[in-house]
Amino acid sequence: MKSHIIKRLVEIVGVENVNTDPAEIYCYSRDSTPFQYFADVIIRPTNIAEVSKVLKLANENRIPVYPRGSGTSAAGSPLPVKGGMVVDLTRMNRILGFDEENLQVVMEPGVICDDLNEFLKDYGYFFPPDPASSSAATLGGMVANNSAGNRAIKYGKTKDWILWLEAVLPGGEIIHTGSNTLKSVSSYDLTKLLCGSEGTLAVFTKIGMRVQPLPEAYKTAMFLFDDLDRAGKAIVKARASGVVPCAMEFLDRLTINTSADYAGLDIPDCEAMLLIETDGTESAAEKELKIIIETVEKMNPNQWKIAQDEEERNSLWVARKSAYAALARRSVTTTMEDLTVPISKIPEALKRIQKIPERFDNLIRVATFGHAGDGNLHPTFLYDERVPEQRDAFFKALKIIYDEVALDLGGSITGEHGVGLIRKDFVEKEHGPVEMSLMKGIKRVFDPHNILNPGKGKPWGSTGEPEEV
Amino acid sequence: MKSHIIKRLVEIVGVENVNTDPAEIYCYSRDSTPFQYFADVIIRPTNIAEVSKVLKLANENRIPVYPRGSGTSAAGSPLPVKGGMVVDLTRMNRILGFDEENLQVVMEPGVICDDLNEFLKDYGYFFPPDPASSSAATLGGMVANNSAGNRAIKYGKTKDWILWLEAVLPGGEIIHTGSNTLKSVSSYDLTKLLCGSEGTLAVFTKIGMRVQPLPEAYKTAMFLFDDLDRAGKAIVKARASGVVPCAMEFLDRLTINTSADYAGLDIPDCEAMLLIETDGTESAAEKELKIIIETVEKMNPNQWKIAQDEEERNSLWVARKSAYAALARRSVTTTMEDLTVPISKIPEALKRIQKIPERFDNLIRVATFGHAGDGNLHPTFLYDERVPEQRDAFFKALKIIYDEVALDLGGSITGEHGVGLIRKDFVEKEHGPVEMSLMKGIKRVFDPHNILNPGKGKPWGSTGEPEEV
Repeated sequence: MKSHIIKRLVEIVGVENVNTDPAEIYCYSRDSTPFQYFADVIIRPTNIAEVSKVLKLANENRIPVYPRGSGTSAAGSPLPVKGGMVVDLTRMNRILGFDEENLQVVMEPGVICDDLNEFLKDYGYFFPPDPASSSAATLGGMVANNSAGNRAIKYGKTKDWILWLEAVLPGGEIIHTGSNTLKSVSSYDLTKLLCGSEGTLAVFTKIGMRVQPLPEAYKTAMFLFDDLDRAGKAIVKARASGVVPCAMEFLDRLTINTSADYAGLDIPDCEAMLLIETDGTESAAEKELKIIIETVEKMNPNQWKIAQDEEERNSLWVARKSAYAALARRSVTTTMEDLTVPISKIPEALKRIQKIPERFDNLIRVATFGHAGDGNLHPTFLYDERVPEQRDAFFKALKIIYDEVALDLGGSITGEHGVGLIRKDFVEKEHGPVEMSLMKGIKRVFDPHNILNPGKGKPWGSTGEPEEV
Repeated sequence: MKSHIIKRLVEIVGVENVNTDPAEIYCYSRDSTPFQYFADVIIRPTNIAEVSKVLKLANENRIPVYPRGSGTSAAGSPLPVKGGMVVDLTRMNRILGFDEENLQVVMEPGVICDDLNEFLKDYGYFFPPDPASSSAATLGGMVANNSAGNRAIKYGKTKDWILWLEAVLPGGEIIHTGSNTLKSVSSYDLTKLLCGSEGTLAVFTKIGMRVQPLPEAYKTAMFLFDDLDRAGKAIVKARASGVVPCAMEFLDRLTINTSADYAGLDIPDCEAMLLIETDGTESAAEKELKIIIETVEKMNPNQWKIAQDEEERNSLWVARKSAYAALARRSVTTTMEDLTVPISKIPEALKRIQKIPERFDNLIRVATFGHAGDGNLHPTFLYDERVPEQRDAFFKALKIIYDEVALDLGGSITGEHGVGLIRKDFVEKEHGPVEMSLMKGIKRVFDPHNILNPGKGKPWGSTGEPEEV
C-alpha cells in the first residue's frame, strides 16, 4: 500500500490504530474456513467520523475495505481476498443506552452478544438471537450476517429485532435507516437489506435493537435415539405438534460423543440427540414441554430426560454450544457447513449427509448438528487441510452438501452463516440469473466502485462479472 | 389508450377481463383517501403467464401499471395517478396448499386475510397480522404494504411471516425470492425489500407464508379513563411491565362513542379506552393479564373489566375493528392517518393531535385510535371534502400530524398504511437526501422505465425527480 495512504490513515485514526506489522496482518488473515488472505493494513477506528473518512479515502483510491468484528465467521466473510484494508470495529464496543419505555437498546457494532445479554439481564430483558459463538460474536457481525442460532425457532433472527442502523456508505456519507419506533413503512426497507449483506453495502456504526422480556421459566428435555431416521421424524412431528419451543437442536453420534466429553456430561452411546426447550410462564413452559414429550415419545426414543435444575440445563447447553469447538479439538481442520431444508426433508438430508464420507473412502469425517426446528443443519467436516487428498475430498463434499442435499431437497445453501467465500459457487444455482442481476444492481447503487468486501459470493456468485477494484 | 394495445390485452387475458367502461373505470378511481384518478383500462389476469405478458407489453410501450387488490388502502397507494392500466389481482385468489410439516401456506395474491385465517383454523394455525380491514384486504396488498394491525405488538407485521415471493418484474421476467425454508441468508433480502414496496418494484403472483399455532386462550381487558394523559401513561407503563400482550389498542372519546354505538355496546362516556389482550395457555394468558391490570390500575382508570366470555370479547373487538367504518358514517369524508412515535411519546402525541381542530376553528374534527402498544396512532379526520375550507384545513392538519407530531417526536410518518399519495410530501423529511437517492437507485434497478405505480411517494417523495413514463 502506498505510503501516502498509510500517512493519511495515521492522520485519521492515529498511529496506534494503523498496523502493517506482518504478525498482525497474519492474525487477520483467517476465520474458521480453510482460506487465508492477507490485508495490507489493519485499521481500528473508534468513531463514525473516522469510519467515514477511512471509507472516503478508500473509495477515492479504489482500495478494498474489509469490515471485521471478532472474526467468528464460518464462511470466510471478513477475509481480505483482495488485500487492502481490514477495518476492525471491535473498539467501537459501547452499549449507548437502554430505553425501557421504548424497549430499545442502542449500541456500537463491536458489542459482544453475551455482553449485551449480561447488560440487559439486570433490566429483565434479553436479545433473543443466540449463535453458538455468542461469547465472541459482535452485534455488527451478527447484523451483517443476520445471525440466528438456537432460539430462532421461536424468536427469529437478528433481522427480526433490528429497528434501525446508522451506517457509512463507501463515499463516506452517513445514513440512518429505519425508524426509532417499533413500526415504520415509510421507506424501502434499507435496514433489512443491509442486515445480511455481509459487509458488501455499508459499514455499520450504530445499531438500534428492540428487546424481549426474559421468560419466567425454561423447561428442557433431552431425547436420545439409536436410529437417525426416527430422530429426524421426531423433529418433523414435534414441529407440527402445535407447540413452538424456544429451541429444537439436533446432534449426531460423533458430535454427542465429542461434546459430552468436552462438557463433562455422561451420555450413553447413541445415534442422535434432540435437545428441546420451551419457555414462558412456569406452567406454560411445563405444559408445552409435556406436549412435545408426548409427541416425541411416539417415535420411540431410547431414552429421554428432563433437566432437573439450572445446572443440568446449563451442561446440556454447554454440550450443544461447544459442539464446534469440541470437534475442532479432534481434527487438524474442522469446517462447519450451513444448509437449510424444509423440515419434512430433515430425515432424508441427514441420511444423505451421513453417506458422504464413504464416497471419499472415509478420508474425511462428518459430524452433524444444528437447529433442527428450523431445518438448519451444520454438517461439520473433520480432515487435515495440509493433505491434498483430504482437502480435495472436502471441497468435493462441499459440492455434494449444497447441490445434492440443500438445493436438491428444496432448501437453501445457507441458513445463518452467510455466503462469504465458502458458498460462493452455489448462489446463482439457488437464485438464478435474474435475481443475481437485481442483486448486482443493488450492490452498484450502494458501492459503485466495489470497494466493500470485494471478492465474495454475495452478491456476485462465482460466475459473476469481474470484481476488480 | 391506443387500440392496438387494447387488442393485445384482449389477446392476453380475454375480452371479458379487459374493461374500458367508464363506470368500471370510476369504481377503480378511489380508495379511502380524498384522491381520485382514472385509469384507461382495467385488466383482470388469472395467472402468472398473463401477468408477465401484460407487464412486458406495458414496459415496451411505457404504459403505467397500477397493481390493485381490494382497494382498502388508506394512503392512495393503488390509485392510477398517471392513467394507464389498473391490474386487478383479486381473481388470483386461490390458497394453493398448507404444508403442516413445514408450517407454510402458499397462496395467490388475491386471497383475503380473513379467508386465509378461516382456512388455517381447521388445522389449528393462524396468520397473525390482523389489519382492521382483514375482511376485505388481500394478502397481495398486505405484502405490498407490510400490513400489521392489532397483533403486531406480539406477532409482528406481514414482513415477519413472509418466506418467499413469486413476482413479475416490469420486463415480464419471473423471480422467486427468498427460500422455501424457515431460514436463509443466501441473497440480499429481496423478499423483505419487495414487502412494503407498495407496488413500485414488482407484481406478486404467489406468496409463501409461515404460520403460527393458534393460542389456547385469550384474555381481554377494557380500561376506561376520563383523562387522556393518564391513559397515555398507562400505555407506557403497561409496555414496560415485562409482559408482551397480543394487543394493546387505544380509542379516544369520539371513536368510543361512535364505535360502541355501531357495535351495540353500552360504554359509559369517557376520554379514552384501552383494550389489552394476552394469549397463550389459559394460565399464562391469565397470569399475564393480571400483571397488566396491576400495572394499569396504578394510573387510576375510572373503570375496568375483563371480558367474561367469547361473546363479550368479540363485541369489544367489533367496536375496535369497526372504528373507521363507524366514524365514516358520521361524516361525508373520513380520512385515516397513520403515524408512529416512540411509546414514551404517546401521551404528548395524543395531546398535540387533540389540539389540531381548534387551530382550524373546529372546521374539521379528529378521532384517534390505534395500536398504542406499537406507538402507532390513527388520527382520523372528519370533514366534508366538497367544502373547500374544510378540505384545505384537512391538508394543513395533515402537515401538522406528520411534521409537528410524528417527526418532531422522533417517530415515523407511517407505521403500516404506507406512503402512497397522502404522505408523499414527508418521506424525504424523514429519510434525508442520501437515503432517498439509494431508494431511487433501487427503484431504477427493478423498474428502469418507471412503469410500476408511478407518481407515488415511495420511493420518490414529492421533491423527487421527474417521474414521467
